[in-house]
Amino acid sequence: MTELRVIPVEGLPEVSEGAKLGELIAARAELQNGDVVVISQKVVSKAEGMVRRLAEVEPSARAIELANKLDKDPALVELILNESQEILREDRVLITETHHGFVCANAGIDTSNLPEQGTVCLLPEDPDASARRIRTELTTRVAVVIADSFGRAWRVGQAEVAIGCAGLAPLDDWRGREDAHGRELTATSIAIADQVASAADLVRVKDSGIPAAIVRGLDRYVAAEDGPGAAALRRPPAEDLFR
Amino acid sequence: MTELRVIPVEGLPEVSEGAKLGELIAARAELQNGDVVVISQKVVSKAEGMVRRLAEVEPSARAIELANKLDKDPALVELILNESQEILREDRVLITETHHGFVCANAGIDTSNLPEQGTVCLLPEDPDASARRIRTELTTRVAVVIADSFGRAWRVGQAEVAIGCAGLAPLDDWRGREDAHGRELTATSIAIADQVASAADLVRVKDSGIPAAIVRGLDRYVAAEDGPGAAALRRPPAEDLFR
Repeated sequence: MTELRVIPVEGLPEVSEGAKLGELIAARAELQNGDVVVISQKVVSKAEGMVRRLAEVEPSARAIELANKLDKDPALVELILNESQEILREDRVLITETHHGFVCANAGIDTSNLPEQGTVCLLPEDPDASARRIRTELTTRVAVVIADSFGRAWRVGQAEVAIGCAGLAPLDDWRGREDAHGRELTATSIAIADQVASAADLVRVKDSGIPAAIVRGLDRYVAAEDGPGAAALRRPPAEDLFR
Repeated sequence: MTELRVIPVEGLPEVSEGAKLGELIAARAELQNGDVVVISQKVVSKAEGMVRRLAEVEPSARAIELANKLDKDPALVELILNESQEILREDRVLITETHHGFVCANAGIDTSNLPEQGTVCLLPEDPDASARRIRTELTTRVAVVIADSFGRAWRVGQAEVAIGCAGLAPLDDWRGREDAHGRELTATSIAIADQVASAADLVRVKDSGIPAAIVRGLDRYVAAEDGPGAAALRRPPAEDLFR
């Protein structure tokens, strides 16, 4: 069993719309075959032009009503509603299902680590497609994960999950296989891509400005095909017991 | 920014009741100050005598009724009820709050990777106390995390979380601090101990029989004091929007 290494990618410039993240990372990291490149959602969103000015948003009556109830900016609430297909909770915090199918706070819209006051950052429109596109800019056979920090229903604090991936098996499904004693494993499907995102976060301290890390030692989960992406990690609403 | 290394601890013997896990690990790993030793829940439970024979369990009428509904073993359901203070869902799967306050499937009781047929394994009675005790058996200044795989409400697959820890800051709380652009971070508290558990799982392939790993490079979160433990990661029921 080999060890795992998580290596921060340092020296990336401030990213603006149109930046080619794959090329920027490849120039600053000595990538090896089988590496997983984990990139923070925010830098992907910036490169894709997903930053919005709150002053340019016209809040609806529903957004104003919700904003008053939650003590939030009506323009921000309007953007959250635009990005959501369903509101799950509007009590203290706004938990929604985004148009992608992610269940998270504020539709994943974030206000921190943006250079300009009065701007916020939406999630990428299709994070699996973003991962696939960035992957084409990388020169060696590596996988790409796009990571964002999500809260959890019953745990305090946030942990990073994969909102997009390409070239990495998102799940390692042991159902039907046997354990070390020959007994069938009944319900063990491991969220590899989410755990990779969490591992990478441990070298990306929030004020360090390091938006990417390399996870090395997971060659067994890296494939030439892009694969199903992080879409495979979204629980279908029909199997959801907690909404 | 230093890189992170995750190193599997190999060559541990099959663990039985009374085993001193800290001593066994210290003899097989070259521990350094600031290391985090992540240990699988199951091996801790075995060392603490938390294995139960289903044939010795007398199921209650309530357990038999639930077992019929869910197509489970009534003795297993009886143990799950014993370990739980509240049932959250009994539809297809049994999601409960354990006496510790963990929300998880089957009260964390597991049937895989046990040498004897007809036995199951309960969670440790007090996993933070387990972590503190194991820590006293380790010779250098290291932290201990006890990890278990939990399902997630809205994500497919399981990810490892910290059910116990000692000597590691479980949360890195950035609320009130400023981002790289001087804007206040409003709601960013990072579940360090859970992310450490997830990182360690990536070197502990399920059939490898490797129940422990060292995470190196997190010295900034390791302290001489045992600290609040993983109890700090359990969301208080009053703040729970999803039960």
